[in-house]
Amino acid sequence: MKQQHLQLDNNKRLRHFLTTEGLKRDLLVEILDTAESFTSITHQQVKKVPLLRGKTVVNLFFEASTRTRTTFELAAKRLSADVLNINVPASATNKGETLLDTLRNLEAMHCDMFVVRHQNSGAAHFIAQHCAPHVSVLNAGDGSHAHPTQAMIDMFTIRRHKQEFHTLSVAIVGDILHSRVARSQIHALSTLGVPDIRVIAPRTLIPAEASSLGVHVYHDLDQGLDGVDVIIMLRLQRERMSSALLPSEHEYFKLYGLTKEKLALAKPDVIVMHPGPINRGVEMDSSVADGEHSVILQQVSHGISIRMAVMSMTMQHDLHSGQDT
Amino acid sequence: MKQQHLQLDNNKRLRHFLTTEGLKRDLLVEILDTAESFTSITHQQVKKVPLLRGKTVVNLFFEASTRTRTTFELAAKRLSADVLNINVPASATNKGETLLDTLRNLEAMHCDMFVVRHQNSGAAHFIAQHCAPHVSVLNAGDGSHAHPTQAMIDMFTIRRHKQEFHTLSVAIVGDILHSRVARSQIHALSTLGVPDIRVIAPRTLIPAEASSLGVHVYHDLDQGLDGVDVIIMLRLQRERMSSALLPSEHEYFKLYGLTKEKLALAKPDVIVMHPGPINRGVEMDSSVADGEHSVILQQVSHGISIRMAVMSMTMQHDLHSGQDT
Amino acid sequence: MKQQHLQLDNNKRLRHFLTTEGLKRDLLVEILDTAESFTSITHQQVKKVPLLRGKTVVNLFFEASTRTRTTFELAAKRLSADVLNINVPASATNKGETLLDTLRNLEAMHCDMFVVRHQNSGAAHFIAQHCAPHVSVLNAGDGSHAHPTQAMIDMFTIRRHKQEFHTLSVAIVGDILHSRVARSQIHALSTLGVPDIRVIAPRTLIPAEASSLGVHVYHDLDQGLDGVDVIIMLRLQRERMSSALLPSEHEYFKLYGLTKEKLALAKPDVIVMHPGPINRGVEMDSSVADGEHSVILQQVSHGISIRMAVMSMTMQHDLHSGQDT
Repeated sequence: MKQQHLQLDNNKRLRHFLTTEGLKRDLLVEILDTAESFTSITHQQVKKVPLLRGKTVVNLFFEASTRTRTTFELAAKRLSADVLNINVPASATNKGETLLDTLRNLEAMHCDMFVVRHQNSGAAHFIAQHCAPHVSVLNAGDGSHAHPTQAMIDMFTIRRHKQEFHTLSVAIVGDILHSRVARSQIHALSTLGVPDIRVIAPRTLIPAEASSLGVHVYHDLDQGLDGVDVIIMLRLQRERMSSALLPSEHEYFKLYGLTKEKLALAKPDVIVMHPGPINRGVEMDSSVADGEHSVILQQVSHGISIRMAVMSMTMQHDLHSGQDT
Repeated sequence: MKQQHLQLDNNKRLRHFLTTEGLKRDLLVEILDTAESFTSITHQQVKKVPLLRGKTVVNLFFEASTRTRTTFELAAKRLSADVLNINVPASATNKGETLLDTLRNLEAMHCDMFVVRHQNSGAAHFIAQHCAPHVSVLNAGDGSHAHPTQAMIDMFTIRRHKQEFHTLSVAIVGDILHSRVARSQIHALSTLGVPDIRVIAPRTLIPAEASSLGVHVYHDLDQGLDGVDVIIMLRLQRERMSSALLPSEHEYFKLYGLTKEKLALAKPDVIVMHPGPINRGVEMDSSVADGEHSVILQQVSHGISIRMAVMSMTMQHDLHSGQDT
Repeated sequence: MKQQHLQLDNNKRLRHFLTTEGLKRDLLVEILDTAESFTSITHQQVKKVPLLRGKTVVNLFFEASTRTRTTFELAAKRLSADVLNINVPASATNKGETLLDTLRNLEAMHCDMFVVRHQNSGAAHFIAQHCAPHVSVLNAGDGSHAHPTQAMIDMFTIRRHKQEFHTLSVAIVGDILHSRVARSQIHALSTLGVPDIRVIAPRTLIPAEASSLGVHVYHDLDQGLDGVDVIIMLRLQRERMSSALLPSEHEYFKLYGLTKEKLALAKPDVIVMHPGPINRGVEMDSSVADGEHSVILQQVSHGISIRMAVMSMTMQHDLHSGQDT
């Protein structure tokens, strides 16, 4: 429960957004509802609201990601915040200045929000544990631990298409073991009441704790996809190939790649999701990626709304309640 | 005429700005007149207008150019737009994500305008052909094909000094063969009614289709400059030297470099232009670059106004008319 | 007195901010007072003021420094200016375009302020001598010459803690010889009336002109810290180590590192300053850096206010008075 406390202020409002784990259903629904209110803004002629005017949002990226950085930057700008992009090469924090010194300096400059991307699991939590009371931390992906905004984008996209969570079968396909996205999705799906969560992967890519997460494990794609409402394809990290955890790309595609034929095993109104960028011909066929069941580009659009939602919610946290409760 | 259609909406207003080729005289004049209205803004105490407030302009640069990127960024900011700078290394679009995927993603984030710089001729057209109806594309230079905003800057600078186009002799000096700037200038000069357009270059640097463009070809600088009103010096790409298309820099300067002596062959009120950055002592002498006939820094100033003009004009295109007309 | 004239307009108001040397006490106090007025803004809910709306501030960094660039960028954004970050690799100005060409181009784009960081002493002065009448230049550090905003941050921090300058003993510890910060501090402390300015360093790191600056030179840390009100630790440039000007880090820390024991030699209410980033265990012990006497993070906060002050003051300079008076 420590993580839940760290993420909430004394009034149980969102202070940081570090993980979907341990957050209550009401709070996840509040994020989805707030994002819903922002989707109309992105279609207006003038797409800006002044909710974060005068606030400074720092994109603190210890791991490069133009794509993720861009969506947070756009979300912040559409809320009228000032944005600082700081890319910290992995080596830099060894050079005399520690991570905490960097943090203290940015706080002293009266920055209000840190969007943190880091190659190490737990980095965003560490920063949230040590930051000043006025600062909020958003986890933009830490190691293989969590990527909560991506998970909420996916929940938002599912809700828009399926309305109710409590009747759904959802399959997550790919490298579950190393995926921060999968972990955050499983916690969110579970909290939102999805009764049938399936993970589909080779034995080498299923985490040991899978069963304790309440998911059903499949090693065969055909069986796993049978009758599902939602298919979430994970991005394959190609560097895993060389580590012998994975067969060749060709072999992987044959076993776990999503094709029109495989798709026919799911429900007729199945939706197909992917956090992007897609490795076409590896995780899925182009005919599926661009096909009528794909909602992949909608996920990207919803990415702005979800990030605006989380940014505006955390900036309303009670400054007089603390992280040490 | 396909290119004209691609650039215009159903009401014949500018939707994309990809090339000066095929655009009608009225439209080029409208660009110049709109830019004229913005020049006063850049001299005001507060240099901003809210025409693009809430719009997101993406500088999508596949080829590095701080200078060009900077002028588009300034123009967008002075129109109150939000600006995203995305530098895409040539290798990146091979890594799993195609150019079209990148495009679709940025569209899904509700970006409104792509300013595209690319090493390949036709890249901006390709993007314009495939982008969403709400998006406008500005070509910031594609291969050796076109650089239309630079050409319009030059037209603007000429009009400010010479008022009328239909009485002028204009000489373009340098590597015509590889110059996207020269191509765009020739189309614009021709459409605006300049009766005497000359290109001056070694035989190896004149394109085969030169005569069909309606220009007069000179290989001798003295003959080419005789009595001209405007001299446009092109930037020499030094990498051409090694390819044996060009003699040494010293040799080139002796034959085609602009000096005070050469300048005396032109009209007494001749103006000298250069798109920058100048290779001093190669394309021209410093005494000419900084001399009384030089309008090179005025070109830079006009660069902001022209880009503001094209940005504001394309953002008014009719969303309900399409690229498939 | 030339430098004073270069920095002031005809009405003796600040036009550029290049060095603390030669500026009168009243002007330094005006900077401190203006910064004081901005500290309240940084604590407001909306931290922006429209003083520089429509102005374009260019961070022109010939030497990389994320930290310094960030504080100038934040200061400019909180004054509502548009900010352009231009990093110029040392090699770039050799490639065809001279420093003056770069300058002329940015002026032609109607940029209003250049924040200049350069590895060569005198670079900011050079730019100020050659820039257009409407432009202001702020020196963000030039070679081993000057770093005036950092010095004024330190003066501001001292005044907040000690109220009066004319009763103080201030010790500056470290590589005085190569420190642009130390030079600017000594001039500012002296002008503001500090009667006892001490520099403490090995013989190899004291400049020859030290005595003419009116400072007391110490080579022994214990003697130098005796009874001081303020200790300013300089950052050790590790690259000096290899040049044999400095002993090993371990040796240096033993002789000149600040520990709790050394600190006890100073006044009981001594404050400890450092321009950051700290090399912990080299210039000082972590117990001192994070201890009760440390005001290092306050310096960072004041950095925004001081830069806002200097930016707003120089932008009010009289456009009709010149640099050639």
